[in-house]
Amino acid sequence: MVAVQVDDYGPWTTTPRPRRETDLQALQARLFADVADFVGGRDGYAFAGRFDNMVGTATRIETDTFERLQERVRNRYPVTVSIGVGTGETPAAALDAAGSVISDAGSAQGDRRETLGDRVAEGFDGAPDTVTVAHFDVVDATGTYTDAVSPTRAELDIRGGVLSLAEYLHDEHGAVTQFVGGDNAIAVTPALDRAAVAAATDHVRAEVGVDLQVGVGRGPTAHAAGDEAKHALETCRETGRRAHGPWAAADD
Amino acid sequence: MVAVQVDDYGPWTTTPRPRRETDLQALQARLFADVADFVGGRDGYAFAGRFDNMVGTATRIETDTFERLQERVRNRYPVTVSIGVGTGETPAAALDAAGSVISDAGSAQGDRRETLGDRVAEGFDGAPDTVTVAHFDVVDATGTYTDAVSPTRAELDIRGGVLSLAEYLHDEHGAVTQFVGGDNAIAVTPALDRAAVAAATDHVRAEVGVDLQVGVGRGPTAHAAGDEAKHALETCRETGRRAHGPWAAADD
Amino acid sequence: MVAVQVDDYGPWTTTPRPRRETDLQALQARLFADVADFVGGRDGYAFAGRFDNMVGTATRIETDTFERLQERVRNRYPVTVSIGVGTGETPAAALDAAGSVISDAGSAQGDRRETLGDRVAEGFDGAPDTVTVAHFDVVDATGTYTDAVSPTRAELDIRGGVLSLAEYLHDEHGAVTQFVGGDNAIAVTPALDRAAVAAATDHVRAEVGVDLQVGVGRGPTAHAAGDEAKHALETCRETGRRAHGPWAAADD
Amino acid sequence: MVAVQVDDYGPWTTTPRPRRETDLQALQARLFADVADFVGGRDGYAFAGRFDNMVGTATRIETDTFERLQERVRNRYPVTVSIGVGTGETPAAALDAAGSVISDAGSAQGDRRETLGDRVAEGFDGAPDTVTVAHFDVVDATGTYTDAVSPTRAELDIRGGVLSLAEYLHDEHGAVTQFVGGDNAIAVTPALDRAAVAAATDHVRAEVGVDLQVGVGRGPTAHAAGDEAKHALETCRETGRRAHGPWAAADD
Repeated sequence: MVAVQVDDYGPWTTTPRPRRETDLQALQARLFADVADFVGGRDGYAFAGRFDNMVGTATRIETDTFERLQERVRNRYPVTVSIGVGTGETPAAALDAAGSVISDAGSAQGDRRETLGDRVAEGFDGAPDTVTVAHFDVVDATGTYTDAVSPTRAELDIRGGVLSLAEYLHDEHGAVTQFVGGDNAIAVTPALDRAAVAAATDHVRAEVGVDLQVGVGRGPTAHAAGDEAKHALETCRETGRRAHGPWAAADD
Repeated sequence: MVAVQVDDYGPWTTTPRPRRETDLQALQARLFADVADFVGGRDGYAFAGRFDNMVGTATRIETDTFERLQERVRNRYPVTVSIGVGTGETPAAALDAAGSVISDAGSAQGDRRETLGDRVAEGFDGAPDTVTVAHFDVVDATGTYTDAVSPTRAELDIRGGVLSLAEYLHDEHGAVTQFVGGDNAIAVTPALDRAAVAAATDHVRAEVGVDLQVGVGRGPTAHAAGDEAKHALETCRETGRRAHGPWAAADD
Repeated sequence: MVAVQVDDYGPWTTTPRPRRETDLQALQARLFADVADFVGGRDGYAFAGRFDNMVGTATRIETDTFERLQERVRNRYPVTVSIGVGTGETPAAALDAAGSVISDAGSAQGDRRETLGDRVAEGFDGAPDTVTVAHFDVVDATGTYTDAVSPTRAELDIRGGVLSLAEYLHDEHGAVTQFVGGDNAIAVTPALDRAAVAAATDHVRAEVGVDLQVGVGRGPTAHAAGDEAKHALETCRETGRRAHGPWAAADD
Repeated sequence: MVAVQVDDYGPWTTTPRPRRETDLQALQARLFADVADFVGGRDGYAFAGRFDNMVGTATRIETDTFERLQERVRNRYPVTVSIGVGTGETPAAALDAAGSVISDAGSAQGDRRETLGDRVAEGFDGAPDTVTVAHFDVVDATGTYTDAVSPTRAELDIRGGVLSLAEYLHDEHGAVTQFVGGDNAIAVTPALDRAAVAAATDHVRAEVGVDLQVGVGRGPTAHAAGDEAKHALETCRETGRRAHGPWAAADD
């Protein structure tokens, strides 16, 4: 996993006086779009995270490659970024290792600039060779939410569903789960079987009443795994099945 | 309030086959950045919402002005947008009215293209003349979260805090609250006094353990109100006060 | 006319060492695109010029409005811009006045930052109330150049035609002429009659052998004039006429 | 060399009616910026060309890699691009081969969409293994042009100098020369010695009175060659020498 943190961003946003909010929103969005392009161009996945702290998966991308991303940001934006690459037993452990590369180099608010490094989570001696992506969306989101209730209500419900999902998958499986727009969430997970994903959607339905379906894919890169997951989700939409993935058909 | 919805976006993302996720992430982010620029250039505020359903405040912007935004999107992107403008007793009621302009014209997944219109919420006979913006952030977010815990944990906690806040302000005051990056959330609210915002931050602290501070501003436009709110939040940071706004100093 | 100059850009591109060329190309292009959006959103026209020195028409846009453009650039890019607004007898005289606002404030390579001002060309006591735009393109550019000869040859010929046109219109009429992509050039001119534009295209044909056609429009803004010019050019394409404009039909 | 052509762009710009000029300008600029990022991320160079026909150098980039660029454009813009990759004795011959891949597949105005292919110029049996880049700029452009004369005059003179240079280098050496902003031009050339570049700058000075200096670099990629050329140009600026390159010091 990859952690991308804007250097000293908070202070910058208010120096010499608070900057216009829409300019900050636009800056963050475009910076993320460029990170997404960079990582996506190498078959990884990128997520907006908190915008000043972005998240990516970059299996099979060398750490040094990210110098080019740092160079590009420096040459295009009024801010710079620090980047940590981490490996671990689970995506969350890997992201934690990635984040510690950055936080060990200095505070998010301070003089640290353009740190780049990688780290293996303590005690982990494996190597990441396969990525698992679970792509979730809300069953009939358009009919249940977008066309039916106020934008505020639709957003609160769907965001609530994604947060419940993210907490569950983090605690149970060490997954990293991100809202990716509309009614979609993507989780980077360890290998999960059909029962595990069903338990996750059951949990969300029980806790916050949001009905999710999920496609799961595995592959050598996030793009490969995610593309398979998207096709699996299409299968759900076509068949009414609530989960589809690279498990034996007998499990469906 | 303004609702901006990408027309028939879900089907587009999977036709003729699922499009690359990072391309979709980048498209959504850039589209939002352009909406932010457009609205911000007219002293409004824009929020990413669910990305396919964006949110803005546009007091004193004529509905027809948004034809230019629709033209710009049509000329720049492979998608188009429908836009509703709404007025109401509260921001949530106004956004609901705005959303109904769009949903009444057709489904989010279908042939509807580039609807534009405005609507006053039923029973409302006032006129919006002042915007109130409450700008929240997490007390010592860098020390408590960003520098201290894993990126996953930090994000889940902060997102949880914002969701708790958004639900509370929606239910109690009809506010529209959005995460705006880092540890920041912005609520467009009716006029709120010191006690009301303190009750909100108390609620979030009690419910999810996230400690917020808030600056409140009022003005003729979202930018004017939001800029005052940002300065008020700076006052909180400098003084250790947990809320500052346009109320009598005796209330601080 | 408006002159937009990137402050101290040359030194920035080589400090601390020469920056990657494609990053500079991308930066310049996006900065221009944002200037085009800003000016276009107010019904003006913008041209790339030399990229570090851009050109616009902004009839009926107040000088102070450009503070917002300077703010946006400062909040989005690693560079800042100075802006001059000029008025004069001809577009070239107006642009000259605009440029002198900037150059009088300091060198393009130095400490000057974010100058903004306006100036009326010496001796001019009129007021700009109508814009004239002449939109040129190459007759059958696709058949003669794009589909027929090498990209290098096509570009050299068309660029040669535009340069010849720009020099002629500058010397004869004080026009400002810009290449705008493909086989198109746009000239902001004083009012020109049919004979004047025919003389211009005759000159280019004689000097460099490039065969141009032209639509002319007049209006209160560059967009209004330019849109009329585009429709006039469509009339040329449909009828085989080599010039069409707001002159008496008897002149066609 | 690489030729990138927007498919059926001319008709799109006027369908169903002429699109707003500033939107087209912004679209073209952003599309080029994305092409520059894509090619630059792989150590190539990209040039705006005529904007609807862009130019790149892509030594050591596989043809199939450009499918990813086509995918990205398709997913981000309302237009698509065709791409040809060519190899030949000279850059101009290579670009000609690249262009013919596209033009052989159909007209620039018609149904052709997203052609991709490569071609070796007839009679060429070598392999491109080294790129030569000559980076030119105008001696004291700021003092002579930007700070001293009107923006119109400065641009016409510098554009005239670049056009003269491009014609000369094309005819004499089969080079591809592009204006890259400010007072800079970059030529992709066969190996040139000191006398050859001096003859080129002499030609421009004699023909149009513009005084150029030049840094030359060679390398396995355009970026490597171009970066060396930029450093060589810095040497010119520091020493007053008018040309510097990878030739024996005795030749300086």
